Amino acid sequence: MSKIVAIDVTDIRFPTSTQLDGSDAMNPDPDYSAAYLRVDTSDTGDTGDTGESGYGFVFTIGRGNDVQAGAVRALADRLIGRDVDELLADLGGVWRELVYDSQWRWLGPEKGVAHMAVGAVVNALWDLRAKRAGMPLWQLLASLSPEEIVDLVDFRYLTDALTRAEALEILTVAQAGRAEREATLLAEGYPAYTTTPGWLGYSDEKLERLSKEAVADGFAQIKLKVGGDLADDRRRLRIARDAVGPDIRIAIDANQRWDVAEAIDWVNALAEFDIAWIEEPTSPDDVLAHAAISRGVAPIPVATGEHAANRVMFKQLLQAGGAQVVQIDATRVAGVNENIAILLLAAKFGVRVCPHAGGVGLCEAVQHLSMFDYVAVSGTREDRMIEFVDHLHEHFVDPVRVTGGAFQAPRLPGAGMQMHEASVREYTWGG
Amino acid sequence: MSKIVAIDVTDIRFPTSTQLDGSDAMNPDPDYSAAYLRVDTSDTGDTGDTGESGYGFVFTIGRGNDVQAGAVRALADRLIGRDVDELLADLGGVWRELVYDSQWRWLGPEKGVAHMAVGAVVNALWDLRAKRAGMPLWQLLASLSPEEIVDLVDFRYLTDALTRAEALEILTVAQAGRAEREATLLAEGYPAYTTTPGWLGYSDEKLERLSKEAVADGFAQIKLKVGGDLADDRRRLRIARDAVGPDIRIAIDANQRWDVAEAIDWVNALAEFDIAWIEEPTSPDDVLAHAAISRGVAPIPVATGEHAANRVMFKQLLQAGGAQVVQIDATRVAGVNENIAILLLAAKFGVRVCPHAGGVGLCEAVQHLSMFDYVAVSGTREDRMIEFVDHLHEHFVDPVRVTGGAFQAPRLPGAGMQMHEASVREYTWGG
Repeated sequence: MSKIVAIDVTDIRFPTSTQLDGSDAMNPDPDYSAAYLRVDTSDTGDTGDTGESGYGFVFTIGRGNDVQAGAVRALADRLIGRDVDELLADLGGVWRELVYDSQWRWLGPEKGVAHMAVGAVVNALWDLRAKRAGMPLWQLLASLSPEEIVDLVDFRYLTDALTRAEALEILTVAQAGRAEREATLLAEGYPAYTTTPGWLGYSDEKLERLSKEAVADGFAQIKLKVGGDLADDRRRLRIARDAVGPDIRIAIDANQRWDVAEAIDWVNALAEFDIAWIEEPTSPDDVLAHAAISRGVAPIPVATGEHAANRVMFKQLLQAGGAQVVQIDATRVAGVNENIAILLLAAKFGVRVCPHAGGVGLCEAVQHLSMFDYVAVSGTREDRMIEFVDHLHEHFVDPVRVTGGAFQAPRLPGAGMQMHEASVREYTWGG
Repeated sequence: MSKIVAIDVTDIRFPTSTQLDGSDAMNPDPDYSAAYLRVDTSDTGDTGDTGESGYGFVFTIGRGNDVQAGAVRALADRLIGRDVDELLADLGGVWRELVYDSQWRWLGPEKGVAHMAVGAVVNALWDLRAKRAGMPLWQLLASLSPEEIVDLVDFRYLTDALTRAEALEILTVAQAGRAEREATLLAEGYPAYTTTPGWLGYSDEKLERLSKEAVADGFAQIKLKVGGDLADDRRRLRIARDAVGPDIRIAIDANQRWDVAEAIDWVNALAEFDIAWIEEPTSPDDVLAHAAISRGVAPIPVATGEHAANRVMFKQLLQAGGAQVVQIDATRVAGVNENIAILLLAAKFGVRVCPHAGGVGLCEAVQHLSMFDYVAVSGTREDRMIEFVDHLHEHFVDPVRVTGGAFQAPRLPGAGMQMHEASVREYTWGG
């Protein structure tokens, strides 16, 4: 029998603020950070030797990463001594056990530090399960039966929009063509877009140069941060549009900067630049505002989700017509299971999913979910792209491979969240 | 000059689960806890002696209180060395500084552990300010001008429902009669209702006995926990209704137990017992579900708010018609300032506010907000009540005085969140 024998949580911070990488209208100086979890198992031979380890993390942008690490540690501690096979055989049950621990749940409920900690633990267990299965996570998930997949999802609070039976139907329909799509994915990868050119702190020259490089690298869409100053946004969009030409899509991202009326006016004032979507126009909690903004800026789509706290928020954004692009995030919600619920909701509503990534390790993690979605849930990559930012990939054991404007499917077993030990040591904060 | 010279944060837990006090359909075994903050100042003479201290806390129900305490500590640390007069003169500015710290904000944003930590810090500063003013918090707030009050509120994300100008108008209208209402409040207090009889873990005999005691004690409303089992709920409601007679109101509280359809069916199946309101029928994040349930159970009002993460959630509940009773909580949102925003929103929409309390110290804290609302915001106590639960008041320096079914107005300077040092020592967890 294999058991969880230890957990280790590290507060890792990269000093990204010195370069203004990641700077936007709400986040002028992020230090990309991770509350990083390692879960150690004894090997299955019960010899006392260390077996496989599973890795998960929560992405933050600096101050407070110690608090997030403390939450991950407090929650992961309860895994120690548990039977690994039992845990991995019922990850739906584990999810419910962690999310519905009533005392812990009070700290959210199902949002913020406490909920993201659940995500790190759940994701580390998925990493373990994928490694034991000898498959990358996307492939493991795509190998499960529709029944096994819905067992991973908790339908509480979802049934007015999506029932278990409806989810099963979506997955059953998608069984046809799984093998073909997996082959296509392995051959072609999954489309990417890039935010690398568009950080608010970059000079006009750097914006222009990086925009041209993005086209040369094969990306069909770039994204610019906006919302600081309208005249600046117009100037920067003109530079970017001139640099990429008329056929490359340009999305914009306000990082929650506006109220409803301002959002509508501002976005419409930028419409001449042919905007692919407006991302996070206002508070991520404001479903009704997203719906009002969607009406006010149509046909420009509204994109949101990287700060949506849980599946209930995504459900409402879809019900209210507040999001025409669903942006899942690998570490904001309670892990793989909750993201599967969100993928199913998006499929039910026929809305495309274009994950949020960047930060540290978010590309490595979230690509598995889009690839699983393509093979086994929505069955399509049409108009879908995973965000790519070319930062910090060198710290990961299985870094993303983005070529020709596409994420190439990971081949190594696991969920993609494991960092090099040397990186962990070097960037341990205060350590 | 007086400075913040030290902060102290304690993880305090009361073993309430042993008595099933506080047990409900989602929280079977809470251990009422507080992540408790003391902020020490040097005296104004700059002699190095210790001056006044301010106290705030976050209420939790056990596991994770250490994480919450860590968050309060991390945030409060930055106050050390700051000039007390400057801080207290601009608590609106302090609120924005803490809430919009971009790195910290990522941990929410504006929700959960990180946001509640802001609340503890802000509330401790209000405690200091009230003590320096020599007034209980409610009276201090009610002595501010309309302009001073709106300066405390951040209107970002609110302007589609409430602008600064509209808030100012509400407060200006309420200036007439402030003195008279303050005198009435000091003479009569503020109405209370009691949840003491209705915990799910109590026996039928205890329910009956406590219901009768509630009537004898002068309460006009009691509340029962429901949502475990419909037959049990019907039996318990019959016992309670028989015990209190037809003229006492009975509210019910499902503590987020249901989905939409189940909520509507369940509540309508209990309608014959003349239900005063249904509280927390479903996920506190689900604005649209609350609106649907409100339509489905009308004319029974829907009450919610104790787990609503911030002012944006309250705004939407009001916009969507999802709450006919707004239940503010003293420690769930970012302190006094954010609760003032919520009181103003409720006044704008003409919806009554009946605070959530109980737990540990929530009655002591939240009464100030309702009393301020009566004197200076809504100007009315009609159909409004503060929740009362008769637990753990003995640990507070200025415990609530509830007589004749009413909270008697606090007279001691401060915000009511200070505990006896002996209690802090005795219930320090693991200490």
